[in-house]
Amino acid sequence: MNILRTPKAMADWSRRLHREGVTIGFVPTMGALHDGHRALIRAARLQCDALVVSIFVNPTQFAPTEDLAKYPRPIAKDRALCRAEGVDICFEPGATAIYPEGFETVVTVPGIAQRWEGDIRPHHFAGVATVVTKLFGMVRPDIAVFGQKDFQQAALVRRVIEDLSLGVKLIVHPTVREQDGLAMSSRNVYLSQTDRTLAPILYKSLQAGAAAIKNGTTASRQIQSMMTQVLRRESAATVDYLAVCDPDTLAPLASVSERAVLLGAIRIGNVRLIDNVLVKRPAKRGRR
Amino acid sequence: MNILRTPKAMADWSRRLHREGVTIGFVPTMGALHDGHRALIRAARLQCDALVVSIFVNPTQFAPTEDLAKYPRPIAKDRALCRAEGVDICFEPGATAIYPEGFETVVTVPGIAQRWEGDIRPHHFAGVATVVTKLFGMVRPDIAVFGQKDFQQAALVRRVIEDLSLGVKLIVHPTVREQDGLAMSSRNVYLSQTDRTLAPILYKSLQAGAAAIKNGTTASRQIQSMMTQVLRRESAATVDYLAVCDPDTLAPLASVSERAVLLGAIRIGNVRLIDNVLVKRPAKRGRR
Repeated sequence: MNILRTPKAMADWSRRLHREGVTIGFVPTMGALHDGHRALIRAARLQCDALVVSIFVNPTQFAPTEDLAKYPRPIAKDRALCRAEGVDICFEPGATAIYPEGFETVVTVPGIAQRWEGDIRPHHFAGVATVVTKLFGMVRPDIAVFGQKDFQQAALVRRVIEDLSLGVKLIVHPTVREQDGLAMSSRNVYLSQTDRTLAPILYKSLQAGAAAIKNGTTASRQIQSMMTQVLRRESAATVDYLAVCDPDTLAPLASVSERAVLLGAIRIGNVRLIDNVLVKRPAKRGRR
Repeated sequence: MNILRTPKAMADWSRRLHREGVTIGFVPTMGALHDGHRALIRAARLQCDALVVSIFVNPTQFAPTEDLAKYPRPIAKDRALCRAEGVDICFEPGATAIYPEGFETVVTVPGIAQRWEGDIRPHHFAGVATVVTKLFGMVRPDIAVFGQKDFQQAALVRRVIEDLSLGVKLIVHPTVREQDGLAMSSRNVYLSQTDRTLAPILYKSLQAGAAAIKNGTTASRQIQSMMTQVLRRESAATVDYLAVCDPDTLAPLASVSERAVLLGAIRIGNVRLIDNVLVKRPAKRGRR
């Protein structure tokens, strides 16, 4: 495995490999890799000749009040995981390599970026869209793998790829969970032992919503109140949002006709957790 | 010469040629090609193996009050010029191919986009930055040639290429002028016969500013007032701006130390004309 640090080195490598007809796969990460990332890397590994993993804790997607400084950075462990999974390039640019003096360009997806996570984290998705576009510019991947856990991020990236004709095939890999259902996340390490035992409540709540849809409930208000009821059992958790949305635009749905995504964000102690469940309503067989 | 109309056809062609090690040159245009475009096409032709010219009157860079509907579209003549100049691909996408339903992404360069032309045409440069990024996504050019006449546009594109690591070598070709100095522009056809004879006053004004700098004037206020004086001779012309700016950021300069760009925009009748002159101050030899 090679470690590259500059945009130029990364771009030169990609250009050379493309000329040789090699298919490039890409998994962008902020490091602190866990089994969720491992699953993304394995999924990518199966679909490309050469595999790039980037490790870049992108400052522009953090608000000043957020956890940029304390975000975990176990680089030796991250590299070891990449090496073990057959990654060819670990791309580790510094912040000044990505954002040199004079940097100004912003990529935004106004509709998707303003809802849910974007509502709570106002500049977050412009930071994500911009850095992903730039990483794609350097890596020039044929395929890129993102995790479903950050559902809104994946929807945003899909929109950017399509709108800017970036020519990247997006693969959204199902969320990898701990045994008790908690979605894996680099931020789970922030949870106290007690809070960790409470954390699966978010997924349980979303599952309750999904079960309701499968059992024929269509009104979003009803689905939402069922999800909220489950969460209320856990007084330590406060709800940021629990929403029934269109999986493409992330606009809230009044009722579920075919597909929906249930999005949830809660706080336990000082830790924010997000999760989601994608639901398909069983096709109606005839009319009553 | 082949004519391509869809993003997919364009992207497939580029991908195939890149695999064969071919260098792709690109001249994006809104059609209504004149000798200025011809010069860009020739400059590109010399530096690449395969040459793409796009003809796309981009609706998002026009304001509702502007000339989108009446913008000249002499497509047969444009194709003939391309064919004569050895263009390989004439890319003529329709507006719905570039902006299909659901399109949302915006690329902006806030600093550059808000000044001068951007001040007068508020959404213009977001439209330009977005469509150029998308065209680059489809064409994947190794080099792209833009005209110096749209100086601010070229500065914006340079910023986008650099910031998003698009890997395109930007060539800015000197402005091609009519014999009397008027910068060639597709919009010159809107000028009445009388106004056409007055139009070179803009370039004369900028030249006066450049001469002042070469003769040792450094204070922008003085340079500006000289340019304004020249323009005042022509009562039919109204000034949108005459500015002394940093050639990279386009920020106004208080005084000229080394390089500067003189930017001008005027109105004659209903027609807006823009032009610019790039100036280098002669290096100081010792102190007085």
